[in-house]
Amino acid sequence: MNIEHIRSLLARVRDGTIDVEKAVSTLKSLPFEDLGFANIDHHRLLRRGFPEVILCEGKTIAQVVTIAEKIVEKGTTLLATRATPEMAEAIKKAVPLAQYNASARTVVALTESGPPTKRRGTILVVSAGASDIPVAEEAAVTAEVMGNKVERLFDVGVAGLHRLLAHRDLLQSARVIVVVAGMEGALASVVGGLVDVPVIAVPTSIGYGASFGGLAALLGMLNSCSPGVTVVNIDNGFGAGYAASLMNR
Amino acid sequence: MNIEHIRSLLARVRDGTIDVEKAVSTLKSLPFEDLGFANIDHHRLLRRGFPEVILCEGKTIAQVVTIAEKIVEKGTTLLATRATPEMAEAIKKAVPLAQYNASARTVVALTESGPPTKRRGTILVVSAGASDIPVAEEAAVTAEVMGNKVERLFDVGVAGLHRLLAHRDLLQSARVIVVVAGMEGALASVVGGLVDVPVIAVPTSIGYGASFGGLAALLGMLNSCSPGVTVVNIDNGFGAGYAASLMNR
Amino acid sequence: MNIEHIRSLLARVRDGTIDVEKAVSTLKSLPFEDLGFANIDHHRLLRRGFPEVILCEGKTIAQVVTIAEKIVEKGTTLLATRATPEMAEAIKKAVPLAQYNASARTVVALTESGPPTKRRGTILVVSAGASDIPVAEEAAVTAEVMGNKVERLFDVGVAGLHRLLAHRDLLQSARVIVVVAGMEGALASVVGGLVDVPVIAVPTSIGYGASFGGLAALLGMLNSCSPGVTVVNIDNGFGAGYAASLMNR
Amino acid sequence: MNIEHIRSLLARVRDGTIDVEKAVSTLKSLPFEDLGFANIDHHRLLRRGFPEVILCEGKTIAQVVTIAEKIVEKGTTLLATRATPEMAEAIKKAVPLAQYNASARTVVALTESGPPTKRRGTILVVSAGASDIPVAEEAAVTAEVMGNKVERLFDVGVAGLHRLLAHRDLLQSARVIVVVAGMEGALASVVGGLVDVPVIAVPTSIGYGASFGGLAALLGMLNSCSPGVTVVNIDNGFGAGYAASLMNR
Amino acid sequence: MNIEHIRSLLARVRDGTIDVEKAVSTLKSLPFEDLGFANIDHHRLLRRGFPEVILCEGKTIAQVVTIAEKIVEKGTTLLATRATPEMAEAIKKAVPLAQYNASARTVVALTESGPPTKRRGTILVVSAGASDIPVAEEAAVTAEVMGNKVERLFDVGVAGLHRLLAHRDLLQSARVIVVVAGMEGALASVVGGLVDVPVIAVPTSIGYGASFGGLAALLGMLNSCSPGVTVVNIDNGFGAGYAASLMNR
Amino acid sequence: MNIEHIRSLLARVRDGTIDVEKAVSTLKSLPFEDLGFANIDHHRLLRRGFPEVILCEGKTIAQVVTIAEKIVEKGTTLLATRATPEMAEAIKKAVPLAQYNASARTVVALTESGPPTKRRGTILVVSAGASDIPVAEEAAVTAEVMGNKVERLFDVGVAGLHRLLAHRDLLQSARVIVVVAGMEGALASVVGGLVDVPVIAVPTSIGYGASFGGLAALLGMLNSCSPGVTVVNIDNGFGAGYAASLMNR
Amino acid sequence: MNIEHIRSLLARVRDGTIDVEKAVSTLKSLPFEDLGFANIDHHRLLRRGFPEVILCEGKTIAQVVTIAEKIVEKGTTLLATRATPEMAEAIKKAVPLAQYNASARTVVALTESGPPTKRRGTILVVSAGASDIPVAEEAAVTAEVMGNKVERLFDVGVAGLHRLLAHRDLLQSARVIVVVAGMEGALASVVGGLVDVPVIAVPTSIGYGASFGGLAALLGMLNSCSPGVTVVNIDNGFGAGYAASLMNR
Amino acid sequence: MNIEHIRSLLARVRDGTIDVEKAVSTLKSLPFEDLGFANIDHHRLLRRGFPEVILCEGKTIAQVVTIAEKIVEKGTTLLATRATPEMAEAIKKAVPLAQYNASARTVVALTESGPPTKRRGTILVVSAGASDIPVAEEAAVTAEVMGNKVERLFDVGVAGLHRLLAHRDLLQSARVIVVVAGMEGALASVVGGLVDVPVIAVPTSIGYGASFGGLAALLGMLNSCSPGVTVVNIDNGFGAGYAASLMNR
Repeated sequence: MNIEHIRSLLARVRDGTIDVEKAVSTLKSLPFEDLGFANIDHHRLLRRGFPEVILCEGKTIAQVVTIAEKIVEKGTTLLATRATPEMAEAIKKAVPLAQYNASARTVVALTESGPPTKRRGTILVVSAGASDIPVAEEAAVTAEVMGNKVERLFDVGVAGLHRLLAHRDLLQSARVIVVVAGMEGALASVVGGLVDVPVIAVPTSIGYGASFGGLAALLGMLNSCSPGVTVVNIDNGFGAGYAASLMNR
Repeated sequence: MNIEHIRSLLARVRDGTIDVEKAVSTLKSLPFEDLGFANIDHHRLLRRGFPEVILCEGKTIAQVVTIAEKIVEKGTTLLATRATPEMAEAIKKAVPLAQYNASARTVVALTESGPPTKRRGTILVVSAGASDIPVAEEAAVTAEVMGNKVERLFDVGVAGLHRLLAHRDLLQSARVIVVVAGMEGALASVVGGLVDVPVIAVPTSIGYGASFGGLAALLGMLNSCSPGVTVVNIDNGFGAGYAASLMNR
Repeated sequence: MNIEHIRSLLARVRDGTIDVEKAVSTLKSLPFEDLGFANIDHHRLLRRGFPEVILCEGKTIAQVVTIAEKIVEKGTTLLATRATPEMAEAIKKAVPLAQYNASARTVVALTESGPPTKRRGTILVVSAGASDIPVAEEAAVTAEVMGNKVERLFDVGVAGLHRLLAHRDLLQSARVIVVVAGMEGALASVVGGLVDVPVIAVPTSIGYGASFGGLAALLGMLNSCSPGVTVVNIDNGFGAGYAASLMNR
Repeated sequence: MNIEHIRSLLARVRDGTIDVEKAVSTLKSLPFEDLGFANIDHHRLLRRGFPEVILCEGKTIAQVVTIAEKIVEKGTTLLATRATPEMAEAIKKAVPLAQYNASARTVVALTESGPPTKRRGTILVVSAGASDIPVAEEAAVTAEVMGNKVERLFDVGVAGLHRLLAHRDLLQSARVIVVVAGMEGALASVVGGLVDVPVIAVPTSIGYGASFGGLAALLGMLNSCSPGVTVVNIDNGFGAGYAASLMNR
Repeated sequence: MNIEHIRSLLARVRDGTIDVEKAVSTLKSLPFEDLGFANIDHHRLLRRGFPEVILCEGKTIAQVVTIAEKIVEKGTTLLATRATPEMAEAIKKAVPLAQYNASARTVVALTESGPPTKRRGTILVVSAGASDIPVAEEAAVTAEVMGNKVERLFDVGVAGLHRLLAHRDLLQSARVIVVVAGMEGALASVVGGLVDVPVIAVPTSIGYGASFGGLAALLGMLNSCSPGVTVVNIDNGFGAGYAASLMNR
Repeated sequence: MNIEHIRSLLARVRDGTIDVEKAVSTLKSLPFEDLGFANIDHHRLLRRGFPEVILCEGKTIAQVVTIAEKIVEKGTTLLATRATPEMAEAIKKAVPLAQYNASARTVVALTESGPPTKRRGTILVVSAGASDIPVAEEAAVTAEVMGNKVERLFDVGVAGLHRLLAHRDLLQSARVIVVVAGMEGALASVVGGLVDVPVIAVPTSIGYGASFGGLAALLGMLNSCSPGVTVVNIDNGFGAGYAASLMNR
Repeated sequence: MNIEHIRSLLARVRDGTIDVEKAVSTLKSLPFEDLGFANIDHHRLLRRGFPEVILCEGKTIAQVVTIAEKIVEKGTTLLATRATPEMAEAIKKAVPLAQYNASARTVVALTESGPPTKRRGTILVVSAGASDIPVAEEAAVTAEVMGNKVERLFDVGVAGLHRLLAHRDLLQSARVIVVVAGMEGALASVVGGLVDVPVIAVPTSIGYGASFGGLAALLGMLNSCSPGVTVVNIDNGFGAGYAASLMNR
Repeated sequence: MNIEHIRSLLARVRDGTIDVEKAVSTLKSLPFEDLGFANIDHHRLLRRGFPEVILCEGKTIAQVVTIAEKIVEKGTTLLATRATPEMAEAIKKAVPLAQYNASARTVVALTESGPPTKRRGTILVVSAGASDIPVAEEAAVTAEVMGNKVERLFDVGVAGLHRLLAHRDLLQSARVIVVVAGMEGALASVVGGLVDVPVIAVPTSIGYGASFGGLAALLGMLNSCSPGVTVVNIDNGFGAGYAASLMNR
């Protein structure tokens, strides 16, 4: 709904090819679709570079399937996150091309032409422990479905620093790095100190006692002594993958 | 200290042009300099793409001046943040080229060749209220000194949405956007929903009562419903400008 | 129990039409009814303009049914909130007129003359996401049963601002607006900045990670930069609908 | 910037009395004024029913005076909150009509025609203790300057309940009640249970030890067992007075 | 183990009626009994005025029964709190005199001579809402089994103040008052302001949203503006009943 | 304002010795005095057993002096807490009998007949460290001025347990014990386990780092494993002394 | 990977007994093994003195068994913590020597030569209540499997101080003491004040209401007034046992 | 006051060389000295291995000097922490041997024979940034005055990991390591993963925004993924040095 659209609309009003009431109505009718319980934002592909994503948590299976069908009907890529196996089954019945990644808890249905764009740089997803993998996979799948090349480097927490340092070349060749870690989240600071590319830190709720559901890792990452580290919400692999893709242009 | 360096060092050992003890010593002697109270990390320019920055808060004037002199002696760009006017005066005596930005609380001394690199994209720094300007300026100055073109859009909080929407073109032409906001921090979500580039949100400690020193804005930004938003620490304009520069390659 | 009642009672004492002990007893016998486990406050209709409401959470089915029967016996409107389907079934057996709204989790039994009063202004209930609907519906049902005309505008979160702006007329024609939002709760600030009527913000516990059960939205709404916004407890749709009704006189 | 404005603008485009580029420009030029450090929102009078208010905290004296002059030049009412005596002196030099209320920390300059509108109902401001008076006065002054009749009932905390109950008639005759209380904030619940009008609760930072800067009162008020109570931020007398005025239409 | 005991022991050593090693052993052998997983503190009856109480939560049924049997064998009163129905059944099999109070979740087995002592004053247990009754009953049963006369006044929350004020005589005739309330906990302040006896406030975890599991009530009670109110842990009816009994001497 | 008063008032109405309007007025005229900024509650002596106390913190010197004079005029005992030396000087000018205790920060002016009542039991005030003494003294002075015999046992923290155990006789001879401690607050649990009288725990804000202004001690005392311990607000020596006095009847 | 290793490697390069690429490869090949989901750190035995331990929580049974088999294949001691009975069964099928301790929730398989080393000093594990035993046992088993002599002293909380003081000899003969306590955690301060050896405090999540999942005990222990006390995470018996073993050299 | 002392005392009672009252008195007279405001615990040297230390914060200069004199009179080592320059001056006047370390804020007066014992192992104090040095120095001075050999390694934070790795030999040769770090506190985890000796982590209050006065570092260190790390209170360098000395036996 940019200035050019307004300009051409006004020109048509001036030229009499559209009347005033119609122009008023056009200015008001924005491109979203009302399902009663959810306004699907088909306009987002233009505005934000990627169609709307379904966050399944907190929705019923019926709601998820209806939204998924509408998205696929429009011919845009489907990405559903935090999908339970039952939700995945239901979506796959309605959208035969859909595929479930049980570790990442994602359902993806690419359009015929595959992911929308192919980016040149590599996004590297690094995780601290085996328990952080679901969040790391959610980030990786999100970045892949948005057209990025993704590499994974898992279980390289700072308690055994040599595991990480052995992959210094891999770290230094990435365009964007997503670091997924629970407990104290120190991995983000250490990786941030080794590279000169943006590092997106994802605290996870993995931890015990005073991790307070990921708060310890979140605070640790926000206070990182390495500049260049930015942070997303606890367990928000999707948000990290999405932001990484925006950075990898 | 990458693999290539090690490879060439080993070749020289093999060829006898360097003896073993000398090679051991080289592998051990990493390029930092010990001032007694602070290890200046001159190697950082190579490793991270920008020389070390002086965070003045918590240091004495004497410490700040000594570090500043060492940095300038090495011929690298000087950036000091959170500098009081007294600190700025002292640095300027030792480093005549240094300039103080009182709003941003930064001292900068460029090298003769100016900022190290010139990037193509524009970094836009947006702030919600007049009280957020010092943090926004710190982000802008940091990005400028790192070689980026920076635009500023201040005092466009969501209580008067038309102020922001009037600048939609500006928002959509930036390569990276830094959003600085206190109180509830809603500006980050609104900007994030309008653009398809990375948005770095900086919560500020501006607020009253239950803002709890910026906690309300921080939590609001971490929970942003707009994907693509990443967050830095409260009042951390420097970190936002630094991360924005890494993203603008 | 106002001054007029006391004045007429004293007049009857003076006139000898009532003796002292009887008057003492009358002054003491306040109009509530003791069920052993709960004092039903029948006097509330006079004092507060609406009879007591049953908050089902934390009560047994038997307790809920007993209170419901007593309220209906008095001929006043029945409103039960946070009712499980089992509770609703049990109430409907005892009170045939009762109707269950599964989304709002409310049971309502109007008296024969319908809602007690008909107000002129419209209460608009706005919600940010599909997951916020149960709380929004609780607010809407509460306002309706108290005699208000209610409009709903759902799924218009700030990540797609055009969805909200398309309904600016609707926003500006309401007498009171209830805004229901989780995550960062930014919708309350944006709506508050667009209108000149009271906005009641309801934070919901919808969110992930650092939403901390609705705390992020609560703090965001309390720190709203738009004056005129007041806040109720997390997920408290009932309280918002009740307050909106008091404002719509 | 409502639909009618757009409709008439389009009619003028159609009629040729305004050309397209001019119309584009008009649609873009929204009525705010750029002072470099602050966008004054003169449009707010139309949109929100009251001109912009200056929150002095966090601004310099020079900034406050400049904004005050601009507001008065436009012929709208001036209200500045959280003004120090020094700020008040400076404003009064620039705006001779301005008056300082030291208890409320407000500066007010009415236009020649006095407060913009006269409302019928009374707003009652109730406070719990002597230390809560500055916040209560800020609420009262805000409501008065917005055209409301205001009554004050101070120092009636629940530790001596008879002080409050002696004024039950006053409580029951108000159209809106603002309750200002620190410590445990119980006064809001007690007042809320006695009346059938909206109650706006303002927690104050008055308290000791585990009041945690007003958190105890804030949580107490949010959890009030009396429906119809809504809450604003800690110490936010201005917000309460503003919201009360919107309710008193 | 007071000075008199030591003095007489030493006298017997001096007189040769007890030898040194025996005296050493006596000084060391303190009266507790080791069950492997729990040291039962039989000495507590002397030292603290009441035998040890079993807190069932966090123990296995077998552990609870074993401890109960040991206590009864010693001829002291049995009180077990937070007992599930299964635990109660198991205790009753082992201790036929034991009786279960399902609302209070207590198991009690008096000794043949009944409660250890009969106190003169009355302990009044007041609760705010129907959901607070289990905690209030735990307090009441504890006080009864410790030999106190207990009265109950339930469901008199401050949202309907007349329900409480109708019982002012009852309030003023008690020797100690226990106030049990969730949500904002205002009842403690109101009762505290009406009487001149100790008030023990028990916050409960009853509440919604920002009650944060009883934190709101706890902070409210700690910040009570009525002096003379002391507070115990959230939901700790037992602790309140125990303390009330110590006060009622 | 109890039932007997109402009964006799009604009898006089019946007998015609008082007319209706006068009786209405009497029922309404409750015994408090309005100073404009503070309602002094002279009735409190009857209702609560002790006249109102002045909490000086948050009041101006002029306010404090005015309230003090009114209290003394009524012939009741004056107790002012948290008084600065300047306040104390000002009060002493107006009330020659007043005496300042700099450690406790209290000003006391007894009536000619001394403290109102003499209680039999002893209140023991125990403190953990030297820094806790001001709070402990506030508790002790409050209890003394209310007519109690008070003993002090200071600097007996649990890091040197023998210092406490040496005074076991003193502990066991008290009627009520006030335990004042900062840091981890363990002293309350240890004392509570040694005695069979009520223990009032006062957390202090003394501590470092993660004591968080007394929060650590507060939580420790609320979670005390010794039943019979009740807690007041952080640093609230006055509240502890007041409650101890109510218990010592 | 110490300096000596590098020195001898370089000597071999110089002597031509190893070529450059081989040496590069050796420097890069660090001794960890990649299972796809977990990097087992076999090198840890050398670097840290004990092989890697499996934290079962958050892992699948299949993952746990695979890691266990790899550890046993290398001939090192197996310790798995937080193992459910099902996990223990599965490990025991794969590793016949493995033994399950249901209270401690540990699985241990010693190598043929038993625990790696035998230390001289005794580690004493002290716990406050019966509910703290699982955490205390986890600490004890960890210390035993690492080659330490361990003594246990359970259920000696400070509510009955004589139970602890009776074992003063045992306390004073230990080389390191681990104190496990929930609720207020006061036991750590009391023990710390009695001995001159390191005390490791383990807060447990045992508690009610305002224990907030162990936060009260954690803060209490961090603020201990007894120097020499250090703290591990809530419920982290393994960490305490491990640290105690490092101290007992 | 161990069993042997009691045994010999009883033998003397039996033998008549001491009478009963004298023995009672001996058992009661524990070795602490009462100064009115502070019980000096001279017995601590025997019980805990080091005399009492003066924590100056929260004490007056006069109190500090009096305690210092008493300690020196007994011929034991004087250590005062958190001493201001004024306190240090005053102590030095009274105790000529005392020396002030301005960075560590400590005053030390050794006895003629120097530190009480000489330990064999080395305690290494590592700090992350220049601002952490005062806390690190407090730890180092405490350990030195208790008879330990101490090495310092400062400004080796994880943002430049090579600075730390260059000193791996030093890390691996220590007997105990104290790690002092603010911000995210990651240094503790990294050091803990490199060594096989006890690591004591000291979070500092150095940091900005969401460091919340050291909370971020504290939580990070408690959640360290490296076992063997234990934690002391925020900024508690003294506690860390004390504990390190106990471990270095």
